[in-house]
Amino acid sequence: MARVVGWDVDRAALEGARARGFVHEVADSPEGAAGDVTVLAVPVRALRELAARARGDVITDVGSTKAAIVAAGEAAHGGRFVGGHPLAGTEKAGPAMASAALFRGRRALLTPTRVTDAGALATVAGLWRAAGAEVMEMPAAEHDELMAAVSHLPHVVAYALADAVGTLGAPAGMGGGGFIDTTRIASTPPGMWVDVFLDNRDAVLRATARFAERLEVLRAAVAAGDEKAIRACIEAARAARARILG
Amino acid sequence: MARVVGWDVDRAALEGARARGFVHEVADSPEGAAGDVTVLAVPVRALRELAARARGDVITDVGSTKAAIVAAGEAAHGGRFVGGHPLAGTEKAGPAMASAALFRGRRALLTPTRVTDAGALATVAGLWRAAGAEVMEMPAAEHDELMAAVSHLPHVVAYALADAVGTLGAPAGMGGGGFIDTTRIASTPPGMWVDVFLDNRDAVLRATARFAERLEVLRAAVAAGDEKAIRACIEAARAARARILG
Repeated sequence: MARVVGWDVDRAALEGARARGFVHEVADSPEGAAGDVTVLAVPVRALRELAARARGDVITDVGSTKAAIVAAGEAAHGGRFVGGHPLAGTEKAGPAMASAALFRGRRALLTPTRVTDAGALATVAGLWRAAGAEVMEMPAAEHDELMAAVSHLPHVVAYALADAVGTLGAPAGMGGGGFIDTTRIASTPPGMWVDVFLDNRDAVLRATARFAERLEVLRAAVAAGDEKAIRACIEAARAARARILG
Repeated sequence: MARVVGWDVDRAALEGARARGFVHEVADSPEGAAGDVTVLAVPVRALRELAARARGDVITDVGSTKAAIVAAGEAAHGGRFVGGHPLAGTEKAGPAMASAALFRGRRALLTPTRVTDAGALATVAGLWRAAGAEVMEMPAAEHDELMAAVSHLPHVVAYALADAVGTLGAPAGMGGGGFIDTTRIASTPPGMWVDVFLDNRDAVLRATARFAERLEVLRAAVAAGDEKAIRACIEAARAARARILG
């Protein structure tokens, strides 16, 4: 049977994971948590450093950005490093928030390169399938551009929206369903997202610029009282959402 | 026992409401659907016209904006018109989507003025309490400014976001939880929101301008790689959301 060895900078989280039976034993250093497969799951800028220090026959990660992490992982481990990113998660953190169903039916993106070992890739893909995820491969650069649009930009927008509504003086208890949903991800703690924005900065800025353009088109239509133009923005938004959700 | 008489421009919706027992009978004109209390529920620009045509001892509405509607209602009916707005709803429409629990535990905002009849106000407040809502009074102008921030702005932002992500070429099936939630309200049909944006245009433009300012602060922080400034934006957003949700 597989044995899981855990390591984390947060000792309380590590002991919480052991107490719940998520790991069989804990290590004193990242190097101590090595075996057949090593899975790295920390904020993305720390991931680059950790990717170099990690040990194991196959090494993979779950970072929200991929190009810089894969470059660091391959520099240290060559074809035994496989970049990964499961499209699942919540705004909660810590072992008490763990869910065995988190990855079920969700996509797990893997970003193999020309140097990736086929056996290592098969091992990592098998791990995600065992957790219930559907594995999909794409180049790291394409992954980062895509995530800037469908994930990082919604976070930028949700943070700016909650911040703006706060400065507009909305009283407590006045958030309706629209505000609650559009800003849910703005409750995510900052550590992870500071890293993602900085690690994927150029793509995040491109996506944000595109959003600002589309916002300005809608704003100008409202300012001009141009009903037809407002309707065109709304219809484009509805069609895009329906298409992206598949 | 109360008898409910319904009227709608959409005959199929009206018959659907009768078939489901939501109304006891249907009228041929808005004037025909009159009684002790008349509740007007159509998009807000049509509401102004309907407010003038409606008949009944007490007349109220459920429009998302209030100042212009209350002015039209009072011009026609004086103190017997009471502006109302329940903070509840979904992105779905039509009698098949009706829910008896929709208003339970939600706020119903009423916007009485100096001319509002005290008996009419008590009747409308009683109607909302019977539906399970918590009644709260505020001036119509204050209502419209507040809704521009907590409701209309999130719709502007969600439409622009879904539109932008669509133009960035995200493939089908790639929307994660963040995209799904931030853009849920962008699936709302355009009729209602074209009206709201135009009816409450100045307040919507002020809220949108504030949002654009806060977005630019976060964008500039990311562009500058200023970790401390990014963190400040995120913390402000989290604190504002927690406060507004109460």
